[in-house]
Amino acid sequence: MKIDIPDINKPRVIIVGGGFGGIELAKSLGNTDVQVVMLDKHNYHTFQPLLYQVATSALEADSIAYPIRKIFDTYPNFYFRMGEVKEVLPDENKIITSINQISYDYLVIATGAQTNYYGNEGLIISAMPMKSIPEALDLRSLILQNFEKALVISNKRKQQSLMNFVIAGGGPTGVELAGALGELKQNILPKDYPELDLSQMNIYLIHSRERLLPMLSESSSEKTKKYLEELGVTVVLNTRVLDFHGDYVQTNQEEDYIAKTLIWTAGVEGAPIDGLNAINKGNRIVVNEFNQVKGYENIFAIGDVASMETNDTHRGHPMVAPVAMQQGKHLAKNISLLLENKNPIPFQYKNKGSMATIGKNKAVVEIGKTKMSGFSAWMVWMVVHLISLVGFRNKIIATINWVKNYFSSDRGIRLIITPFVLSKAKRKRRKEFEEDIEKAE
Amino acid sequence: MKIDIPDINKPRVIIVGGGFGGIELAKSLGNTDVQVVMLDKHNYHTFQPLLYQVATSALEADSIAYPIRKIFDTYPNFYFRMGEVKEVLPDENKIITSINQISYDYLVIATGAQTNYYGNEGLIISAMPMKSIPEALDLRSLILQNFEKALVISNKRKQQSLMNFVIAGGGPTGVELAGALGELKQNILPKDYPELDLSQMNIYLIHSRERLLPMLSESSSEKTKKYLEELGVTVVLNTRVLDFHGDYVQTNQEEDYIAKTLIWTAGVEGAPIDGLNAINKGNRIVVNEFNQVKGYENIFAIGDVASMETNDTHRGHPMVAPVAMQQGKHLAKNISLLLENKNPIPFQYKNKGSMATIGKNKAVVEIGKTKMSGFSAWMVWMVVHLISLVGFRNKIIATINWVKNYFSSDRGIRLIITPFVLSKAKRKRRKEFEEDIEKAE
Repeated sequence: MKIDIPDINKPRVIIVGGGFGGIELAKSLGNTDVQVVMLDKHNYHTFQPLLYQVATSALEADSIAYPIRKIFDTYPNFYFRMGEVKEVLPDENKIITSINQISYDYLVIATGAQTNYYGNEGLIISAMPMKSIPEALDLRSLILQNFEKALVISNKRKQQSLMNFVIAGGGPTGVELAGALGELKQNILPKDYPELDLSQMNIYLIHSRERLLPMLSESSSEKTKKYLEELGVTVVLNTRVLDFHGDYVQTNQEEDYIAKTLIWTAGVEGAPIDGLNAINKGNRIVVNEFNQVKGYENIFAIGDVASMETNDTHRGHPMVAPVAMQQGKHLAKNISLLLENKNPIPFQYKNKGSMATIGKNKAVVEIGKTKMSGFSAWMVWMVVHLISLVGFRNKIIATINWVKNYFSSDRGIRLIITPFVLSKAKRKRRKEFEEDIEKAE
Repeated sequence: MKIDIPDINKPRVIIVGGGFGGIELAKSLGNTDVQVVMLDKHNYHTFQPLLYQVATSALEADSIAYPIRKIFDTYPNFYFRMGEVKEVLPDENKIITSINQISYDYLVIATGAQTNYYGNEGLIISAMPMKSIPEALDLRSLILQNFEKALVISNKRKQQSLMNFVIAGGGPTGVELAGALGELKQNILPKDYPELDLSQMNIYLIHSRERLLPMLSESSSEKTKKYLEELGVTVVLNTRVLDFHGDYVQTNQEEDYIAKTLIWTAGVEGAPIDGLNAINKGNRIVVNEFNQVKGYENIFAIGDVASMETNDTHRGHPMVAPVAMQQGKHLAKNISLLLENKNPIPFQYKNKGSMATIGKNKAVVEIGKTKMSGFSAWMVWMVVHLISLVGFRNKIIATINWVKNYFSSDRGIRLIITPFVLSKAKRKRRKEFEEDIEKAE
């Protein structure tokens, strides 16, 4: 294998990760005199805020994914390589990838976040994450497989556990997913499975705090809870999921929840790469107000993986797309300044508000002091997400799906293209783990 | 597990397979006084004629798949079960499935066709089939993975073999796939991989007979060849692929073809189920003019898996969708007649013509004595396929993709969602196989 990036006699900026931050940065660097090299293990950008719609048969996966090469078709100094970055060698200004070694003048780590199970073995083996398209497709398959199985099983307890779903985590992902499952329960599944009594299906949303969507106001949290309950979701507050082995979900309260499926949205952590020292408790890379990684001159981190720990932001910014996009845009400016030997400008986050959709005509939006809910909030949510979706084709297809789903209350994409099967490694580990528990008891 | 189909005191017709034939039959039985039970290993119907568009990034998989339950939402006597049928027990009027045993009054086998490698081990292990959606998605991933790899490899021969594609079989599937690859070569890949010399990419279409699309007239075959050559495809006639081990394709002529990828469309056979005797050389079930399986009163077979061997049709009908659909519709009528103790009517195939699309504005159509080619044929092809696609949503989304691809000469769906990896079993078998060959030499 050769070092395969052409040397074009311009400073080379390597961006690791094609998420919101990386894409925005590369776009903003398009007009500057640098060579941009982006690496990602996927050849596409994922629009993560809509993953829950893929998992619940409302949108096809392909309309929330966008080929990275296509975004930068017209950028002459842009180079993409599909591959995983293994390690940074800061002393040599090099990264080691699954393909080869590449040297950089500036390195930007934009690797985002990953699911955090807090080391709990049971969760690692048996809970369903939802941070990537393959994971969302696995969840879509599993939900549908559960009902196909429930139809042919005679054991009542097993049937019940197939029809129950526990979602851990009352942030936007958990709330939106619970709402979408509620809509499936009300509108779709009774038509598909007339032989099953769908009123038996339980959706539990378990949240450790005393209210859902803690970044919103109390009144929005209340509304969210009300909307979810209207859709048949049981909201369980002040409760933490402790363990799960595929049969029932254990919590720190008296109640266990019988369910074959636990969807885990209750923990994320940074997904940094090896070779850097400045990693904090949340597995995020500590950066200064210029997104510069602590201790390095020419290494930066942006987005979910970065924790900007200044006097204003002790614990870093929230791990959401707008922070990543703003940091990407801002860092492009700072890199230009640094190239001209000028001083960089500190980053300032502009919070443009928060929103979540629970179901048809059911959403909450807060922009500054403006609070909206119901139909108008739902429209705002939809417009904002449509504008942000990358690519004309994707926007149109999402619109068609949403319009069609709206008028028909339907979900057209109830397909089990690749059945979900617990991997051999996980099955093996589950067995070992159960044996260990037995021994300990 | 229980026998789970409710007994509703109507004669039970079990249909095995939700392809063109099975769906048409179940629809036509909708208004008759029978219970219809359909089994399929997938929960969706596949629109097979457009699989090649999924494989070449032109259409998303989800728009050529349609949930079977959704098709029959409003049919009160229709029951669907996802599962594989293992065996028929004709003496007991029962089938054994992966779920349980189910008894029938009438059994219809509509299991379609499967890829036939004629027992060649090398092909079984290393060639890419394209008969199902997962297979088409594997092919899509592999094509894109090849180019990502070609970009970072220094060995010239290996790079060349990654950029070469051999398609075996000059029927509609092979021709359409070759044309679509030609369009990728001309319009998409040079934009995505400016660092590669795409004129190096070779697409070989290898066909054993002396002309492509033998079911069409000689002039249409000629035109097809010309269109393919305009798109940069090398058409190799009178040549049979003999063997392949992942490096080069061996044929019965003097030429070998260096390529890492061989797509196999040169053989299909019936996909019958165990327990019946009347299987012919092509692995199809021999039926009489009423689609009745030879030797059984109440077992029928329709579509690709059925070979109607009467005086008119010695070797059975062609294995194409229109035959299956017409037989499905006709059999519904005959089942009704049998229930009324009337005589069934012999099936007569109405050949409505054949068509194939090679690329933008490049198609051939023959309907009766009318022959078309070029733009008009391409429009006819498109309208016919749109009308046949199941579901309003799917039609709209296919239209948008086609219109967008037409004006931009683009393919929006160049995504490697699940990378293609040769299965462990196949890797193991390839190794064993290579060792066997070494020993023999």
